[in-house]
Amino acid sequence: MTRELVSIVMGSDSDLEVMQECASVLKGFGIPYQMQVISAHRVPARVAEFAASASRRGVKVIVAGAGAAAHLAGAVAANTTLPVIGVPLAATLSGFDALLSTVQMPAGIPVATVAVGKAGAKNAGILAAQILALSDPELAKALDAYKNSLAADCEEKNKKLQEKLKDF
Amino acid sequence: MTRELVSIVMGSDSDLEVMQECASVLKGFGIPYQMQVISAHRVPARVAEFAASASRRGVKVIVAGAGAAAHLAGAVAANTTLPVIGVPLAATLSGFDALLSTVQMPAGIPVATVAVGKAGAKNAGILAAQILALSDPELAKALDAYKNSLAADCEEKNKKLQEKLKDF
Amino acid sequence: MTRELVSIVMGSDSDLEVMQECASVLKGFGIPYQMQVISAHRVPARVAEFAASASRRGVKVIVAGAGAAAHLAGAVAANTTLPVIGVPLAATLSGFDALLSTVQMPAGIPVATVAVGKAGAKNAGILAAQILALSDPELAKALDAYKNSLAADCEEKNKKLQEKLKDF
Amino acid sequence: MTRELVSIVMGSDSDLEVMQECASVLKGFGIPYQMQVISAHRVPARVAEFAASASRRGVKVIVAGAGAAAHLAGAVAANTTLPVIGVPLAATLSGFDALLSTVQMPAGIPVATVAVGKAGAKNAGILAAQILALSDPELAKALDAYKNSLAADCEEKNKKLQEKLKDF
Amino acid sequence: MTRELVSIVMGSDSDLEVMQECASVLKGFGIPYQMQVISAHRVPARVAEFAASASRRGVKVIVAGAGAAAHLAGAVAANTTLPVIGVPLAATLSGFDALLSTVQMPAGIPVATVAVGKAGAKNAGILAAQILALSDPELAKALDAYKNSLAADCEEKNKKLQEKLKDF
Amino acid sequence: MTRELVSIVMGSDSDLEVMQECASVLKGFGIPYQMQVISAHRVPARVAEFAASASRRGVKVIVAGAGAAAHLAGAVAANTTLPVIGVPLAATLSGFDALLSTVQMPAGIPVATVAVGKAGAKNAGILAAQILALSDPELAKALDAYKNSLAADCEEKNKKLQEKLKDF
Amino acid sequence: MTRELVSIVMGSDSDLEVMQECASVLKGFGIPYQMQVISAHRVPARVAEFAASASRRGVKVIVAGAGAAAHLAGAVAANTTLPVIGVPLAATLSGFDALLSTVQMPAGIPVATVAVGKAGAKNAGILAAQILALSDPELAKALDAYKNSLAADCEEKNKKLQEKLKDF
Amino acid sequence: MTRELVSIVMGSDSDLEVMQECASVLKGFGIPYQMQVISAHRVPARVAEFAASASRRGVKVIVAGAGAAAHLAGAVAANTTLPVIGVPLAATLSGFDALLSTVQMPAGIPVATVAVGKAGAKNAGILAAQILALSDPELAKALDAYKNSLAADCEEKNKKLQEKLKDF
Repeated sequence: MTRELVSIVMGSDSDLEVMQECASVLKGFGIPYQMQVISAHRVPARVAEFAASASRRGVKVIVAGAGAAAHLAGAVAANTTLPVIGVPLAATLSGFDALLSTVQMPAGIPVATVAVGKAGAKNAGILAAQILALSDPELAKALDAYKNSLAADCEEKNKKLQEKLKDF
Repeated sequence: MTRELVSIVMGSDSDLEVMQECASVLKGFGIPYQMQVISAHRVPARVAEFAASASRRGVKVIVAGAGAAAHLAGAVAANTTLPVIGVPLAATLSGFDALLSTVQMPAGIPVATVAVGKAGAKNAGILAAQILALSDPELAKALDAYKNSLAADCEEKNKKLQEKLKDF
Repeated sequence: MTRELVSIVMGSDSDLEVMQECASVLKGFGIPYQMQVISAHRVPARVAEFAASASRRGVKVIVAGAGAAAHLAGAVAANTTLPVIGVPLAATLSGFDALLSTVQMPAGIPVATVAVGKAGAKNAGILAAQILALSDPELAKALDAYKNSLAADCEEKNKKLQEKLKDF
Repeated sequence: MTRELVSIVMGSDSDLEVMQECASVLKGFGIPYQMQVISAHRVPARVAEFAASASRRGVKVIVAGAGAAAHLAGAVAANTTLPVIGVPLAATLSGFDALLSTVQMPAGIPVATVAVGKAGAKNAGILAAQILALSDPELAKALDAYKNSLAADCEEKNKKLQEKLKDF
Repeated sequence: MTRELVSIVMGSDSDLEVMQECASVLKGFGIPYQMQVISAHRVPARVAEFAASASRRGVKVIVAGAGAAAHLAGAVAANTTLPVIGVPLAATLSGFDALLSTVQMPAGIPVATVAVGKAGAKNAGILAAQILALSDPELAKALDAYKNSLAADCEEKNKKLQEKLKDF
Repeated sequence: MTRELVSIVMGSDSDLEVMQECASVLKGFGIPYQMQVISAHRVPARVAEFAASASRRGVKVIVAGAGAAAHLAGAVAANTTLPVIGVPLAATLSGFDALLSTVQMPAGIPVATVAVGKAGAKNAGILAAQILALSDPELAKALDAYKNSLAADCEEKNKKLQEKLKDF
Repeated sequence: MTRELVSIVMGSDSDLEVMQECASVLKGFGIPYQMQVISAHRVPARVAEFAASASRRGVKVIVAGAGAAAHLAGAVAANTTLPVIGVPLAATLSGFDALLSTVQMPAGIPVATVAVGKAGAKNAGILAAQILALSDPELAKALDAYKNSLAADCEEKNKKLQEKLKDF
Repeated sequence: MTRELVSIVMGSDSDLEVMQECASVLKGFGIPYQMQVISAHRVPARVAEFAASASRRGVKVIVAGAGAAAHLAGAVAANTTLPVIGVPLAATLSGFDALLSTVQMPAGIPVATVAVGKAGAKNAGILAAQILALSDPELAKALDAYKNSLAADCEEKNKKLQEKLKDF
């Protein structure tokens, strides 16, 4: 069995519904991944160990989703030099807190932050694929195909709108 | 020499000017303290070790000041059951990022957050003193005296204003 | 009968659902507490009297929850040198108003502010316990056990996720 | 000597520069006023006593200026049924904190909030005059004249602009 | 028939549910009032005429409720020297737009702004009553009684909470 | 002499420095314009009259710049069916107040809002030119040329950067 | 068959419900329009081609609705000198993201931004009509009639309110 | 001469001071890069061509810095499947506009967003290096060494602080 190339971590199991968007994208591209519930504040040592050993375990990219004072992505980034993608999750303050806690990292320890919520989770998967595709020409082609499908999908929706508008 | 009861930590030496407000308050109350530059993102293992061992070393309260995606107070709180006071420091986004990153902690791991900047740093020192005073009657008296001095100071300023207004 | 060590106050009885999170935590730790509806704007004299006499009555920590222009924690803090914990409650403006009204206290009169809403209310209880534990070794042990249970709970959720993912 | 009709209070003597805008307006209308430094958090009992006795002392309107977690206007309003005007003063968070702390009062205890900073302080004076003018026809006329002068001033500025533009 | 002392205006009939809170308060105090739908942007001339003639018609205070780019209170204030109370109503942007559009008036033309939504509408009624009470001793007494009832209500809620907590 | 096609109005003569960016653009395109200081709150009747008569006077587009509770553009739009362009000007709250007061107009009365400050003022001039160019082919060509010059300017800056980087 | 004068574009077919408000207004004024789903990020080349050719195809005004990092209006404006109207659509962050992404265009490339959501979509249609009316006297009359109908509608609502209030 | 692996683009030459932080990091790691001024709104076709051809030219990662309605990173991402890193630059609205315009990308087209301003520009360089290091073991080692130097630097600053505090 193939070891995972992307590790998806989330602060709570209630984040699963959103973070599955990321997993679905990776699955679609045939990228081996693993998902874990792991909290920067509840199991900090395991986060540190997880992040520090990720490279050795063959992981290439880590995706971290968290809400509120979302420290998970930053805590992971503090313990690895692998690219870390942060997904801010919305809660009490519409996700403004999670967004700022994730993106405003100090000089030296970047977190590649994507949009708040499901669009962000999906894009985390695509960004991970884009990073992996730099050394995987097949994946690069798959990404090009995906990009074309986005365009085709948009054209299709437009056609349907034109049909619909005839009766308007 | 007395061991410190309060540990003041900050993410960068550029935070010293603000965090010294906290130290000055503690010094004024005769509370032994220690100050350290220690970063949740640059030396995460040392933060974890520092926080986990603080109680054994006799520390009673930890004050953590940080800006931007201010994870320091939360990272400390994740590794200790001592009370942790967070001071959000202002930078690019007026301190909104540091405030939300510090205060919006998930259920289970509180950070006692005070105001952004110097007022907050000073109040972190007073809050630490209030906590220590619960088992130190002398300190409790000193805090009452300090509270009275705030009132007297306010009255004094009011008197000076009345003098000033005579010529207005 | 044991006198309360923690006083929980709230501005309105509609705040009870959120503030009970705090009470439940204290109950879980066996800490005697009392809950009251008391409003900084409707019964200011009683707030002042309540806060000023709290120390004499044996209270060690006061937790105050309020929404909108949330002055309750500050009004209590103005009348005592006991540690005061503020819980901002969300209403019209997502809790931004309550958060800023609670946390941005002027130099001299700190309020230990926690997160907006239920997570904050729960953390207020834990923070109160952490403060009391400084002079109560049994409580300190209980807090360590609670912290371990948070970690175990996180691990358990992770295991369940792994089970669930087998079918994904 | 005439007793004051308007009491201007501010949380700190550093607020004087802004609040003098209010005093200047009242002076211009010949309305007796008094200015005081009085802090909701440093001298709460005096605030309560000041507000509760204001009506008996002949005061008709109270103007309160404060920054950060600006509780002063609300604390005054809690202790009187006189109209209370709140002036939010800008500090760390651009005045957003003072604005929300002042305006978002709970049902039952209004604070008539004006703009952040000097424009607000000036308008507090005019609003106080408008309230007093309801039972003072001379003052009402003066306010009409003032309103006309604002218009004339605007026309004058427009004329000067037209002159200036000739050379543009 | 008694002429109204307070005019309540609102930008749209959909604002009625919120603004009726203001009317109910005035009715409770026996203050004659009138309510109108009148829009600063749809019938600007009528707003100007309404505001300019209000004083002649015996109106003493005008309450204006509006949402979004809430110009109604400001447009009224531009055409009268009567006190104008603005109630920001929440819509798309949680009421932040209406609050800032109402409160941030330029120097010279104050709007007495109250809280966003129903609490603000109710407080607009109380503030209007407070202003009228300056020359109406009976109303002043009624306001004192109302203030006492707020306190009594708070005490009553506290008692009920104590009953409830016995079973907790 | 040619009558103006574009009327630029601003709430205060202190807005001139920013609004001149708009005038310069119009001058550059040879579009006759006029500038006026005219305030929605200080001379509301003149604003109404100005706006209502603009179309008769041959004006095609009105540009209104204002800060804080920026009602000027909306007040103009309420009195004309000409296109009205609003320029939010920054003051106390970074221009958030002026932006929201200008853009969040209710259904029925649009204001074409551009960016806060100088970029917005300049763009107001360009937008006015774009609108006029719909029936002025020469102006349309000039706009195309201007667009090309923006591109050329960008290319030129890029070339200079390449020169500069050789020594980096 | 008449060619469209106004092109309405939107980033996703899920935006149709809001953007139909714009179409309805145009239909009501008898202005030929076309609606398309076209995404700045999914089919950028088509957006560029669409915008660059719009003028040749006889289009006079383009309305672009988009949410989140709403680049559509700006991407269109980058490729045409026709007036472009941007409608920010609300999603995760209440529309603040779409509003700022649409309105804060750099100097040189204006987007005429209207309110967030349905009110904005409707106003985009009216603004487009106002622009077209500059060279279409019949349309100008229709806009005047529409403006009168807004006023009449407001008066009608007021009358109904007066009826309703009789029973209050 | 080596072709660039990282392309740094910025919307204006005034962004150079901030974006040079990114270039310095890349230079420090010996990663060939190129810098260009290229604007999504002024030269959209060149942005599209630049992004679409980047992969063919051997570019692996694109870093895009822009302010205000910062569309550059998104416009690049729309035309490539290479990883795109966005740096929001602060201007009028403290960078909130640039941050939201950069990070809130729709599902399908990610932008890896870093912090506002210089810290973000520096982190963009490090993130690019982290991505490249996945297939460059020497670079991975250099990143580990850099991470160690951050830690050592933090320890050094702490030592200096301890020296300094001796005299405090």
